[in-house]
This record gives sequence, structure tokens and C-alpha cells, in this order.
Amino acid sequence: MHEPMGISSANVTTHIASIDLNADLGESFGNWTLGDDAAMLAVVSSANVACGFHAGDPDTIRRTCRQAVARGVRIGAQVGYPDLPGFGRRFIDMAPSDLTSAVIYQTGALTALAASVGGTVDYVKPHGALYNTIVSHEGQAAAVVAALTALGGRLPLMGLPTALATDLARRAGLPVITEAFADRAYLPDGSLAPRSMSGAVLHDSAAIAERAVRMVTDHSVVAVDGSVLEIVPESLCLHGDTPGAVAHADAVRAALVGAGVAISSRRG
Amino acid sequence: MHEPMGISSANVTTHIASIDLNADLGESFGNWTLGDDAAMLAVVSSANVACGFHAGDPDTIRRTCRQAVARGVRIGAQVGYPDLPGFGRRFIDMAPSDLTSAVIYQTGALTALAASVGGTVDYVKPHGALYNTIVSHEGQAAAVVAALTALGGRLPLMGLPTALATDLARRAGLPVITEAFADRAYLPDGSLAPRSMSGAVLHDSAAIAERAVRMVTDHSVVAVDGSVLEIVPESLCLHGDTPGAVAHADAVRAALVGAGVAISSRRG
Amino acid sequence: MHEPMGISSANVTTHIASIDLNADLGESFGNWTLGDDAAMLAVVSSANVACGFHAGDPDTIRRTCRQAVARGVRIGAQVGYPDLPGFGRRFIDMAPSDLTSAVIYQTGALTALAASVGGTVDYVKPHGALYNTIVSHEGQAAAVVAALTALGGRLPLMGLPTALATDLARRAGLPVITEAFADRAYLPDGSLAPRSMSGAVLHDSAAIAERAVRMVTDHSVVAVDGSVLEIVPESLCLHGDTPGAVAHADAVRAALVGAGVAISSRRG
Amino acid sequence: MHEPMGISSANVTTHIASIDLNADLGESFGNWTLGDDAAMLAVVSSANVACGFHAGDPDTIRRTCRQAVARGVRIGAQVGYPDLPGFGRRFIDMAPSDLTSAVIYQTGALTALAASVGGTVDYVKPHGALYNTIVSHEGQAAAVVAALTALGGRLPLMGLPTALATDLARRAGLPVITEAFADRAYLPDGSLAPRSMSGAVLHDSAAIAERAVRMVTDHSVVAVDGSVLEIVPESLCLHGDTPGAVAHADAVRAALVGAGVAISSRRG
Repeated sequence: MHEPMGISSANVTTHIASIDLNADLGESFGNWTLGDDAAMLAVVSSANVACGFHAGDPDTIRRTCRQAVARGVRIGAQVGYPDLPGFGRRFIDMAPSDLTSAVIYQTGALTALAASVGGTVDYVKPHGALYNTIVSHEGQAAAVVAALTALGGRLPLMGLPTALATDLARRAGLPVITEAFADRAYLPDGSLAPRSMSGAVLHDSAAIAERAVRMVTDHSVVAVDGSVLEIVPESLCLHGDTPGAVAHADAVRAALVGAGVAISSRRG
Repeated sequence: MHEPMGISSANVTTHIASIDLNADLGESFGNWTLGDDAAMLAVVSSANVACGFHAGDPDTIRRTCRQAVARGVRIGAQVGYPDLPGFGRRFIDMAPSDLTSAVIYQTGALTALAASVGGTVDYVKPHGALYNTIVSHEGQAAAVVAALTALGGRLPLMGLPTALATDLARRAGLPVITEAFADRAYLPDGSLAPRSMSGAVLHDSAAIAERAVRMVTDHSVVAVDGSVLEIVPESLCLHGDTPGAVAHADAVRAALVGAGVAISSRRG
Repeated sequence: MHEPMGISSANVTTHIASIDLNADLGESFGNWTLGDDAAMLAVVSSANVACGFHAGDPDTIRRTCRQAVARGVRIGAQVGYPDLPGFGRRFIDMAPSDLTSAVIYQTGALTALAASVGGTVDYVKPHGALYNTIVSHEGQAAAVVAALTALGGRLPLMGLPTALATDLARRAGLPVITEAFADRAYLPDGSLAPRSMSGAVLHDSAAIAERAVRMVTDHSVVAVDGSVLEIVPESLCLHGDTPGAVAHADAVRAALVGAGVAISSRRG
Repeated sequence: MHEPMGISSANVTTHIASIDLNADLGESFGNWTLGDDAAMLAVVSSANVACGFHAGDPDTIRRTCRQAVARGVRIGAQVGYPDLPGFGRRFIDMAPSDLTSAVIYQTGALTALAASVGGTVDYVKPHGALYNTIVSHEGQAAAVVAALTALGGRLPLMGLPTALATDLARRAGLPVITEAFADRAYLPDGSLAPRSMSGAVLHDSAAIAERAVRMVTDHSVVAVDGSVLEIVPESLCLHGDTPGAVAHADAVRAALVGAGVAISSRRG
């Protein structure tokens, strides 16, 4: 009763010592630019770098990797559907075998570009519609996990703790990095409120920052029905290409640092 | 000075002990098939596997790598311009930086797919118009060499001994694999006769096979003007997607084996 | 034999006077060829010409139109999802607005290419996964119908009589061309048996041809449960890129002609 | 007959009464936006709308056409090489037949999208590297002219008066719209100074506007060597996606209007 407290307290201190912040980067394509990569690289500790299928041409990818390496930011493969006009935001009913090969292809391409500027790829984070699909689609979730296994089984899958793919990855013995969204409303079951729901996305920097701090230091988030959910994210996802994105990201980082939390991709 | 014969003979024996045969493979794309990969894999010792820019979708590439590994055939990255409708056969005036990144991207993608089925990528061979362009185009030849350097400097560049890129690669300290074409006419300066020239491409299996044997065992080829050129190829390129391709390839292999030459990608 | 024959014959003659045969054509892409367009053009009266999104590069499309014009074969726009690697056979969750614009774009491109060789585009037939999707998907079915309306409302939609899109097109006052498949099994409700069902696809030329004749002359087809369905197709779809496709197509045409049916895209 | 002066004066008045202003529009692609189309549509009388090969997805194109129609702005087909990653700014060595079909394809696609919102396509203007290539490349210049002929011979080609394609178009009996660039330096032979030359691109709004007025009202431009060239452009090209582009465009329009010139795509 009185003893665990100290331990627990020590544990909590250990746990809240640091948190990873991740954002999507390298999503420009040829003559088209998207997002403020330079600004976001000053905020995050992990960069989900587009791999050419939904965004990111080879030279943009390489440049992004070079900047991430210079900043000491961890690089992850932001793999997506082969869909430039849809920016990977539309479900494509890919056969599992095609999807597995597509994930390996993209991760390999990024790995070589990162290595060419002194970096490494340290995790895989599916993008857009693929991210949402593997929350519940068995065939595609298993296909992504199969790709990670085929890639050697060392790269963690970054995703929602409640996603089917996260579960399958764990069962396959693969490492995972669970993440949370400080600017999204949560349903009582721990899943994200659909964007169609009123209030699904938070727009106030202060509210988002406060939420982030609570997620990290108190391991909790208030769901849409007022219930308090336990949440132990290893990373917080920040958006980089929405209005006010950089301001939100700055606010989150400042609030976390102000609360004594280190921003780092290294696990405590 | 006077005794070189014995030494030379020994050397020649060493040199002609084996030759590498290479062909383009994995050039199908989605629902479209091209070439007879299974037949060609029974003939060659090196497979130039398309990397998705001019041909080859991820799952086709992976399947091709699996077959090559099963056959013990060496895998090379057949990198090309980003041009599916033109099959990489049209010059594109890419900026050097874009080309360098594109070569790294493709090689990395193939490397991961090959590794996922137990294989490795052991050389890089530019395809089509890129192959022809780097024979003389300084910016693009240097860009391809820069990619190989950025990839670590271990992968050999496969190409014509007379190509500018081959020369630049050597000067950059990179390994090279020189190749010859048994079914193409040679100009007196050692370059290939342009396809527009009458007789530029040989169509008779027996003639092609005889030419291959002479290239490998006698280190010579008769040019279009009747002069005899010295040629010491480390690999012979076989075509896989032209009429009679497999028959020609079979004839070349049979003639070489009949002349006591081993078909192998391992250097003597 | 003696009297009814005349009347019956007259009636039957009216109904069975002619049938349209359609097939997918122009599905090659750059260096990749698919199907035997020349052979199929000798069999069909309507060519569903690919429009570049799932197959068909501009020059292939133009060549196909030229051949169709030379043969007097009607040209239709075979519109598909923007998905070359998937050949348009994978559902893509396109927003209705994007899909409407994509159908207009493809139909317009084909119209100009057809006009450049003296032809016209006379109907629209969605391809692959889009064809299947608009059997039941409200948003996409409506989007296709919206495209036809935006194109002027004169081009018929070719499709299954039971498809939602066919129904929506009729309600929007658009012309439709209903088609049937002589090589596919039918469920008792008039829909096609899913390909996963045993016996869903017929492979015997004689059986397919007999079925085609019955569909056209008797307006009936035997469903998988043995029940006889009434069916009054305005066109029969023949496949051109499967094993034995040309043989099946030849058999169907020969059987129809033998039964006194004219093959024509003109309505009786 | 004896009053040429008056007539001449009247003619001159007629000529300077109006000028067309054109700019590239609709060059966004999916999630990527480029340029300020709304602002430019308030300035120009002709919109060169991208057709999907170098930029512009179908729905973006349709939206741009709708805005142009609402503004009374003439629509032209801004056709380009099939090169999204290069934004059509890299020469591609396309075979003439492929290029002809590609120009027909793009123009047809735009025509249907424009028609669907009540507009028409009234000219063709090649984009980027294609624009520059047909200044001197015989095969590609002839291929573009062949496309215009195949499209019916009614659509004018917009381009430089000194371009080979312009010359070939005239000789083929096709209409042309000659254009000038108020923000580019001219060589004494009437061609544009290469961008690599110092001072090749003007950056001062006032200077650009003054130059535009002189081109239109005095039919002259001062070349880099100080010589005065005669120039009778039917349209002035304004850039929409460079820094200060909208400010330059506004300045040009204001200066022209201030000089009594009407901005209109209708010929005097």
C-alpha cells in the first residue's frame, strides 16, 4: 500500500520521462509542395516519410531523409496505397499478396535513400486509407504484418493500440509502437471518433496541448461520453498539413516540455 | 616477353572457364505479361530484374526474385526511367539529382524484395534508353555513378566497356561488369552498330551462338568492316522478349557449354 | 410447320432479327499487348475500347478505333478506375465527384481519338471493378449516371439489366443497353453467380454457344437452380483475353448466325 | 484608296483595341494545389487548362473549366508530356505517333469536361518542355500539328511566332495564336533569351507592365542588345505560379487598361 506507491511513482516518472512525437513528412511530389517539413522537423522526434506511392518522389524523399538525419529525427516508412491522384486516402481493394509486396517495395526504397544520407528506417507506419483499413480489415492487416515479417521482423509497426494490425503484429512476435492523437476525439471503446462526428477533430491549440500532456503524464484521455480512458501511447501523432498544424505542433511540444517530458524517439 | 604464351594460355584457360549470361526479367506489369521468365531463368546466370519504373510491379518483382533464388541465378537491379507507357525506351531529360535518387530508390526497392525471399542484389544494370544515354551523356552517366557510390560503392555497374558511365564508374573506384552482345553488329571502334543500320541485329541462332563462343573463348568479334576486335566480356546479354529469343538463348548456352565454357555469374 | 410458322416466324424474326456482340478491346499498354484485337474485331459488332485509366495508351486506343471503323464495329467507352497496376479490377473508394469527372475525362479522350479516325463513341461501358461496383454501390452508380448526363444524355449505359446503375440511368431518362453473359452462370434472381462459386464460368464452347442462342432466340437462360429466367439482352458480352476466348467467340457467332440471327449493333 | 491614312489609322486602332492575356491554370493535382487560379481568372481572358498528363486531375480540370466559364474566360488545352513527377518540364523523346495521339487524347478529355460545364475548348497550347521542344524539333513539331489537323483543323495552336510548330501549323492551313512574354528578355532574332542568361527573366512589376503596353500598343520590344524588334502578339502569356506572379499579372492588366487596351480573347 505504502510501498508500491514509491515504486509506482518511480515507474510513472520513468514512463513520462519521454514521449515520441511523429508527423507525416516528405509528402511533396515533383513540382508540388505540401506541408512545412522544415518547421515540423524542429518539433517531432520521428518523421513518417512518404515512400512514393501516395506521395514523395525519390529526390524529395532523399532530401527529407537528409534533413531528418541532420536533425537527429528518427525515420519511418510511411507506406501507402499506389494512388497519387487520391493521395492514398481512398481504400483500394488490393490482394494481400500485392499489398505485402507493395509494403516491402516502399520500405526498401526508403531504406536505400535513407542509407545514402547516413540514416536508417526504424519503423513502418501505414498511411491514410491503408492506416484506417488495417484497423479492421483482416486480409489487408495480415498482409501488412506479413510484409514486416518478410522485411526481417525487426521494424516496429506504428499504429493504434486498438487496431487489428497491431494485434496481429504482436501475435506474430513483431515490435509495435502504439500512438495516440491529441487532436482527435475518442469513443468510449478507445477508437477514434469518425471524422463525420461533430467535434471529432479539435482545433484549439491549447486544448490539444493540454490533452497531449494528460495522455503522456496521466495516461488518460476523456472520451466523448465523458468517461476516462486509460491510454499509454509510445508516440503522439501530429498533423503537418492542416491549417494551424505547425502552431498546434509547437503548442503540444511546448506544453510537454513545460511538464517535464522529454521529446525523444528512444524508449524510456 | 617470349614466354607469355604459357602464362597467357593458363590465363586464357582461367578466363574462358566461365562466362556470365544475363537477360532482362520481371518485366511483366499487373495483368500484362512479357517474356518467358521461366524459360530464360533456365538459361542465364544473372537476371536483370525490372524495378517498377519502366516495368515490374512489386508482386511480379518479388515472384521473379523467388524464382531466381530457386534457380541460383544472380539478381541485378534493372533500373530505368520513370516511364511505364514508354517502357523506359524513351530518353527523358532528367536532372542528375532526380536520376541519382531514382536509381537509389529502385535498387533499394528491389533489394528489400529480393531479401524477403532469401536473395541479394549484386549489380545494377540501367535499362533501355537510360542504358544508351549513359554511353555518352555526361550528366546522366555521372548521376548513375553517383547513385552507385551513394548505395555504398559495392555494387558493380553492368554495361558496355566503351560506355562513358563504365569509365566514370572505374574512375570512382566502383566495380564494373563489362558485357557484350552476341546478336548485335559491332562498329570498328567497339561500339554497337545502331539498330537503324542494316544487319545491326543478328537473327540466326547458329550465327549468334558461334559469335558468342568466339567472344568468350577467343576474346574477339568481327566488326562490320571485317576487322577483328579484341573483346573480353565478363557477361553476355541475351534478349528475352524478341521473336525467337528463347531459341537464341538456348543455342548460345548450348554452344558455350559444348565449347567447355561454364555458365556462371561467379568470376573466374 | 405449315401455318403458324409464318406468324411465329414473323414474330421471332422481329425479336431474333439481330443481336449485338460486344468485347473489351484496346487493352494493350505501351510495350505490353493483351488479347487478340484483330480476331475479336472479326466477331463482334461493338468494341468496348479501354480509355487509358485501367489500360490503353493513347496510340493503342487510336489504332484500335481505326480498326473498329474499318470493320464497321461500333465503339464504346470502356471507362475504369485509375489503376494500371490493378487493371481496374480492384474497387477504389472514389468520391462521387472524382468518379463523375473521371468518366467524362475518359469518354472525351476516346471521343476525340475515335473522331480523328472517322469514328464516334456510341455508348459507355464501365470496366472491371467499376462495372461490378455500380451493380449495388449507390454513390458510385449515381456518379456514373451523373457523368452520362453531363456528357449530354445521349450515350447509352451498357450494363446488367439488374444493376442499380442501369436502374438509375433509366430513371434519369438516359438510354441503356442491357447485356447478358453466355459464359457465366446466373443466380435465380437474375444476377451473375460470383466467380468464387463452382461452375460460375463456363468453359465449353458448344455449351456457351448454345446458351447464347437460347438467350437471343428464346429469351431465356437456365439458372443454377434449374429455374428458367426470362432475359432479353440487347447485347452479349464476349471475353477476349481468357484462354480459348477467340474460339468461344467464334463459336457463339457461328451458332447465332446458324440460327438465323444477324450480328449487329443496330437495334432491330 | 486615296485615304489610306485614315484606314490605316483605323486599322491600328482596331489592332490595339484589345489583347488577349493567357495563363496556365488547373495545375493542381489531387491533394496538391498549385497557383492561385481564382486570382488569375480575374486577370486573364484565356486559361490554358492542364489536361492530366503533366498536371490536373479530372475533377480539378472540371472545376477550373466551371470557374473559367463563370468568368467568361476562354479555355485552351494545355497539353504536355506524360510526366507527373517532372511536371512536363523534361524533354521526353516520344515517337511522333505517340505524341500525336497524346495531344488528341488530352484535348478530347478537356473538351468533354469543358462541355459538361457549358464551355468549349478554343485553342491548344503545349506546355513546358513540349512547348520548348517544338520550337525546333521537327518530328515533335510535326506531330503536334498532325494532332491539330486530326482534331478537325479548327483549333488554333498558341505559341511563339518564331517556333517551327507555328510555321508548320500555318503551312498546314491551321489557325495560330502568336504570343509574347512581357517578363522575358528577347534575343535579337526574336527568340526568348535562355533562362540561364543573366536578366533572362524580369522581376519588376512596373518594368513588365511597361513592356507589355509597348508590345501591344507599339508592336515592339527592346532586345538584349538594345535593338528594337517588331512584335505583333495576339496574346500575352502571364505566369501564375512564380513568386509575385499575381502582382505582376495585376500590374500588366492595369497598365494595359490604363493605356486604353481592352483585355479580350476575341480577335479585333
